[in-house]
Amino acid sequence: MGYQIPRGTQDLLPGTVEKWQYVEGKAREICGKYNYNEIRTPIFEHTELFLRSVGDTTDIVQKEMYTFKDRGDRSLTLRPEGTASTVRAYVEHKLYGLPQQPTKLYYIGPMFRYERPQAGRYRQFVQFGIEAMGSDDPAIDAEVMALAMDVYRELGLTKLKLVLNTLGDQESRQAHREALVAHFQPRIGEFCSDCQNRLESNPLRILDCKKDREHELMKSAPSIHDYLNEGSARYFEAVKATLTAMDIPFVIDPTLVRGLDYYNHTAFEIMSEADGFGAITTLSGGGRYNGLAEEMGGPATPGIGFAMSLERLLLALDAEGITLPVETALDCYLVTMGDAAKAQAPALLYSFRKAGLKADKDYCDKKMKAQFKAADRTNAKFVAVLGDDELANGVIAIKEMATGQQTEVALTEAVAYIQGRI
Amino acid sequence: MGYQIPRGTQDLLPGTVEKWQYVEGKAREICGKYNYNEIRTPIFEHTELFLRSVGDTTDIVQKEMYTFKDRGDRSLTLRPEGTASTVRAYVEHKLYGLPQQPTKLYYIGPMFRYERPQAGRYRQFVQFGIEAMGSDDPAIDAEVMALAMDVYRELGLTKLKLVLNTLGDQESRQAHREALVAHFQPRIGEFCSDCQNRLESNPLRILDCKKDREHELMKSAPSIHDYLNEGSARYFEAVKATLTAMDIPFVIDPTLVRGLDYYNHTAFEIMSEADGFGAITTLSGGGRYNGLAEEMGGPATPGIGFAMSLERLLLALDAEGITLPVETALDCYLVTMGDAAKAQAPALLYSFRKAGLKADKDYCDKKMKAQFKAADRTNAKFVAVLGDDELANGVIAIKEMATGQQTEVALTEAVAYIQGRI
Repeated sequence: MGYQIPRGTQDLLPGTVEKWQYVEGKAREICGKYNYNEIRTPIFEHTELFLRSVGDTTDIVQKEMYTFKDRGDRSLTLRPEGTASTVRAYVEHKLYGLPQQPTKLYYIGPMFRYERPQAGRYRQFVQFGIEAMGSDDPAIDAEVMALAMDVYRELGLTKLKLVLNTLGDQESRQAHREALVAHFQPRIGEFCSDCQNRLESNPLRILDCKKDREHELMKSAPSIHDYLNEGSARYFEAVKATLTAMDIPFVIDPTLVRGLDYYNHTAFEIMSEADGFGAITTLSGGGRYNGLAEEMGGPATPGIGFAMSLERLLLALDAEGITLPVETALDCYLVTMGDAAKAQAPALLYSFRKAGLKADKDYCDKKMKAQFKAADRTNAKFVAVLGDDELANGVIAIKEMATGQQTEVALTEAVAYIQGRI
Repeated sequence: MGYQIPRGTQDLLPGTVEKWQYVEGKAREICGKYNYNEIRTPIFEHTELFLRSVGDTTDIVQKEMYTFKDRGDRSLTLRPEGTASTVRAYVEHKLYGLPQQPTKLYYIGPMFRYERPQAGRYRQFVQFGIEAMGSDDPAIDAEVMALAMDVYRELGLTKLKLVLNTLGDQESRQAHREALVAHFQPRIGEFCSDCQNRLESNPLRILDCKKDREHELMKSAPSIHDYLNEGSARYFEAVKATLTAMDIPFVIDPTLVRGLDYYNHTAFEIMSEADGFGAITTLSGGGRYNGLAEEMGGPATPGIGFAMSLERLLLALDAEGITLPVETALDCYLVTMGDAAKAQAPALLYSFRKAGLKADKDYCDKKMKAQFKAADRTNAKFVAVLGDDELANGVIAIKEMATGQQTEVALTEAVAYIQGRI
């Protein structure tokens, strides 16, 4: 009987996993330059956390969470996103009390949503995200967007669009909300049942509906930009001015919203404009959530962050035909001939590795020709050949594969010889 | 209302997480030298996989698994260990058909067991492990042990003990099993109920019982070493000879067993002998499992691997008083004075980061003195001070913190100046 991987999940195997390692390494490196430090939270949290933070009217909470009881009868949920856990940890460990603020964090790890699997969408997927908590300086909004753009750009992506909007502060949102209700209510019967529910719970999300996107009331819906109070308008202007000073191009889209209640002020998405990237062009999304830490029992704390799917990032790299500079070659493959040489090989190989060389040998009792083939497959820069005769003479033949040059050196000199040429 | 982390799990925060990054980086680097490549399998698998591979009589399966139904009514389980998933992937993706054998894989990631939390034991914990499938050369057994020892040693641990045993092949195990039953059966009533069950299901595991370890029959129990057939004895001799040739010290413990049925031949554990490390001294365990791939629907494939807990590794580092060389200092902290300088700061900082510098600035509208304090806290190597006057003159003051030396350079030269001195 055979066993299969659970539906909607994937194994990352050698040959593919190196791309992930490279992308993650680049994300970590860029976070280092921006002084964002890693946080690792558990794979699961108390279910209540997501009900409260993600919001119990969202699709995620209503349809997509992996929720279960543990053996102590606690309701746990595999995290569907990273912000709730990060803010939970920020509050629980009182990071707001540290002298160094804002607290700038990043995370990379698996998230879980029970959705219909399709290209680039898995039930277990990897998100990289950052959160900056404790500052409402418009410059940190710009920094967060700059960091996201840098990750894509440093991997080679060029067909990118940064789409920006503001949701305003609570007062502006409330005024906008009332205008939206007044706009949609008379004809809400023409909208889907989800939208009918949203009219009460969160009319902003009607603008985000995929089913009703062609309805004529959508285009004429009141824009948040007409309802911004002075402070909100000034904040948005400052964010835009900072991005412009940093020479980061962006476009304004007044219909861009974030689904969750606690978002306010800055909202943004980064899209791929590569040909053939597919219908869903959003690579990452982010925004400001000034109320969330308070919602979780902490002090009032401004916050902003983004999350990006690494699956979609890799699709975007493919769409732009970008090959990552992944390095997998061995430094040295050891070929042996004869029983004495074979017996000596593990200790010799071990000395190569202890000296820092990436090295390997055959473990399947292959003939010499097959060992050379194996050496080729590992892309080894050098092949070291040890026969019983060489061993008796305390020497080893070393072939540099790029040049074909073969040299006999003392066994004790083999490591130094190879290191001198890498 | 506040939210708490689930019991038995932990957040890894900045200041701690860097140790994990360092240890994982070292493990990955050493895997690279040994030509082991990463595999990433899902966080959960079909429950059946663990019932079959880990074994449905084990504590893990009976008491400790996080098992739940997904929305499609599949029984899923958060992985309690890494070998089952790795071998499942090896079989499912037919890695045995690749020309390059053995298939040498490593994994690093969270595992889940519902156990009573205690020092160094969490319900979510991180295991690093390797699996080499497709070779029954005793030299690969030695390689696997060498790699595990290298990880510990390269992190600075010295108080280590490699404990080795053989479980023999199926024939030897069967003979030993019969001897064990004959030995314990007459007085099995004096043993715990678990052991009484084990007499039938897996008498070898009686030797592993923590409750009955002082019983007089334990010491006099028949040793596998008296029941090894010729092939098994020869295999064990070859493993020992290879370790000796590699100058890796080990001790033989004939009572060392692995809990699971499919293990055979080589079994090993690495223990910490550091003072005050605690009652559980095992850092990692491994062994040969020649039947497992077949069990999962693949061809008969020899395999060997180990798994180590990173939580216990970090405890061992603490017990030996080892501080990891973690580097967190910024290259440059930008201090501004005046509105014009503050407005210019985001773009200037961005240019620092794009040039590769790890750099930061204030985002809380702090006074200059507080900005200098913040710079100190980030351990910045350089502090760059931009006032409105400097900005007007196109210059910036750069202070090297190690020497206290302060220099005024052109704004356009700031990056080059700092890079030249790092």
